[in-house]
Amino acid sequence: MVKYEDVPKGFKFYGTHVGIKKKRKDFGLIVAEEVCHAAAVFTKNTFCGECIPIGKDHVKNAELQAVVVTSGIANVATGRIGRENEYRILESLSDKLTIKKEDILPSSTGMIGPQLPIDVIEGFLKTEPIELNETYTDFAQAILTTDQRIKVRSLKIGDATLLGIVKGSGMIEPNMATMLAYVLTDAKVEKEDIYSMLRETVDQSFNTISIDTDTSTSDTVAFLASGHYEVEKEQVQEALNQLCRELAIDVVKDAEGATKTMFVTVKNAETKKQAKQAGKSIINSPLVKTALFGNDPNWGRIAMALGKTDGLVFDQNKVEIYYGMYPIFSNNKEEKQNVSQISEYIEQSEDIYLTVDLHQGSENFEVIGCDLSYEYVKINSDYST
Amino acid sequence: MVKYEDVPKGFKFYGTHVGIKKKRKDFGLIVAEEVCHAAAVFTKNTFCGECIPIGKDHVKNAELQAVVVTSGIANVATGRIGRENEYRILESLSDKLTIKKEDILPSSTGMIGPQLPIDVIEGFLKTEPIELNETYTDFAQAILTTDQRIKVRSLKIGDATLLGIVKGSGMIEPNMATMLAYVLTDAKVEKEDIYSMLRETVDQSFNTISIDTDTSTSDTVAFLASGHYEVEKEQVQEALNQLCRELAIDVVKDAEGATKTMFVTVKNAETKKQAKQAGKSIINSPLVKTALFGNDPNWGRIAMALGKTDGLVFDQNKVEIYYGMYPIFSNNKEEKQNVSQISEYIEQSEDIYLTVDLHQGSENFEVIGCDLSYEYVKINSDYST
Repeated sequence: MVKYEDVPKGFKFYGTHVGIKKKRKDFGLIVAEEVCHAAAVFTKNTFCGECIPIGKDHVKNAELQAVVVTSGIANVATGRIGRENEYRILESLSDKLTIKKEDILPSSTGMIGPQLPIDVIEGFLKTEPIELNETYTDFAQAILTTDQRIKVRSLKIGDATLLGIVKGSGMIEPNMATMLAYVLTDAKVEKEDIYSMLRETVDQSFNTISIDTDTSTSDTVAFLASGHYEVEKEQVQEALNQLCRELAIDVVKDAEGATKTMFVTVKNAETKKQAKQAGKSIINSPLVKTALFGNDPNWGRIAMALGKTDGLVFDQNKVEIYYGMYPIFSNNKEEKQNVSQISEYIEQSEDIYLTVDLHQGSENFEVIGCDLSYEYVKINSDYST
Repeated sequence: MVKYEDVPKGFKFYGTHVGIKKKRKDFGLIVAEEVCHAAAVFTKNTFCGECIPIGKDHVKNAELQAVVVTSGIANVATGRIGRENEYRILESLSDKLTIKKEDILPSSTGMIGPQLPIDVIEGFLKTEPIELNETYTDFAQAILTTDQRIKVRSLKIGDATLLGIVKGSGMIEPNMATMLAYVLTDAKVEKEDIYSMLRETVDQSFNTISIDTDTSTSDTVAFLASGHYEVEKEQVQEALNQLCRELAIDVVKDAEGATKTMFVTVKNAETKKQAKQAGKSIINSPLVKTALFGNDPNWGRIAMALGKTDGLVFDQNKVEIYYGMYPIFSNNKEEKQNVSQISEYIEQSEDIYLTVDLHQGSENFEVIGCDLSYEYVKINSDYST
């Protein structure tokens, strides 16, 4: 657990219930003392939420001072009114906090389709005091939907601190899984570096996980640096990579209905892209995922999923498949003598390491996912209306 | 149900238990009186079974006289020994039936990894008589794995008959879903036409369905024409298209754990390919499939799945989504007044028709799939060993 003192200098937090959800906190703020250098990456879903184009616009000068998150309704597929509602929230906040609205990044997560209860939110912002907090707990709670727990990580980089808060992959009245992540630091990060640093880290952390192949309409990862401490860029990058990897794994561990985490490494592919595609084909296969849920060392499904990877050509005779340290398939045949050890390994481990060696090139890639359980079907088939 | 007299002239059948499965029939034959004009299409999975390259080789001269299917073990990932076993079966059959082994198409379906019990199969073929049958029932049973029922359709084309027998998408000791289909006719089909006719039909029937995104390592669709009756090519093509569409729907209806069938039509796309990709993105989304299982008119997930379609660009303001005849989303907002009718429609229908109109071009495509249920997870998470 992250200690309360592990909060980077220059940031405060807020989280409360305004009335989007029935009872739980549904409105969160991160506010920096000064304008920060900032970057953000967003969902590639074409049917994206109303916050996404506004966020892209506001972060394009690499500056942000605040983040506002509403949870319970995603403000997606809500048209002109949805866009106007988002601006009304930003304007109220801008007045209240005396921050330029162009320096606020909005996010929204929850059900697709309904309009935000804008009068309720505006009413709250006009009448209620906002007391910003040194600790992140209220904020981390306010951004959750069906997440089981808050997910927060921190790291020291010399005197500086890196703090990450993430939500996902939950549902509300069950609807869309979404992922939001906010990473804050008091280290100094140059404006011209901040986007490429975030991009690098996202590609090797959040972009390597998959819960259920469905791309959220609201995904956002933002990185704000308040600039209190001078730290080597490489150190910041390294800490950022480590922190985001930990947060990404936290998301998988809290995935809907998941009982196990699987780390799939595809080794010795011709290109990194092919290694990643093959890994995703394996980790996204419903037959691989249900076998994992059943503690079933069903490597035939791994072979199937590898084989269906779009555009991947390989020599079946050279492929090796390992669970943990144990080979289960090599020289184009099953390693029968290892089956009982592998069964035991799968049964007794919460984290399963699967390696597929193509013996074809020299590029490796790891992807991270989870099993497909009854609970996943339950969570996602319950009636929404 | 197909009547027994609806069998094209010149074909006989056989199905029995030889000892691959514990008790049920596991060995099937279709044998033609004479060499037929023939074509076949096969799985694109790179990790394909040992039958696949042999089948490709044997059908390349557009001639076949027999089909042999073993079920219970897929003969996939079995290397040199697996290939040799397949040839040993073909040689025994060739002797027994006095048919050239190059005129026999082998198929195998079931668990990936184990070797066929070749001594048992050869022993059977050496000692037991094979009495070919006028009816297809034993054959249709012998090719099943965890299918709930045999799936057979027939159509008349003038005096000629078209008969199709399909299996899928079942599991054995639960393992790989596979699809095998054999279509027979006594109509005359020219050698130079037969492959393109089959290709056309497969693209608009079997290639439009999806149970769980996992591509089998053994998929095979074969078409044999014994040439007794002269029929217009267009008539044969039309009947073939209709029959294969019916068989494809039969496969979806018998899908693992499925309770509902969904027909997704994407209309007015710029290209047919994009319409198909968007349809597949929707029908393959676990969130769309679990919502369907839950009778949930959760159109937000349809929007999400449309939006994540790789490379598809569209204008959210123009998109319309219909369940049956009822619009649920248009002009970038929910059609709230239709929600209760749509809920009723979904609850009371076994076949759900979903239409997404992009208002962008003029190309349409329909794909067919099913829901994702507890039973799917159960079937596929039971321990295999």
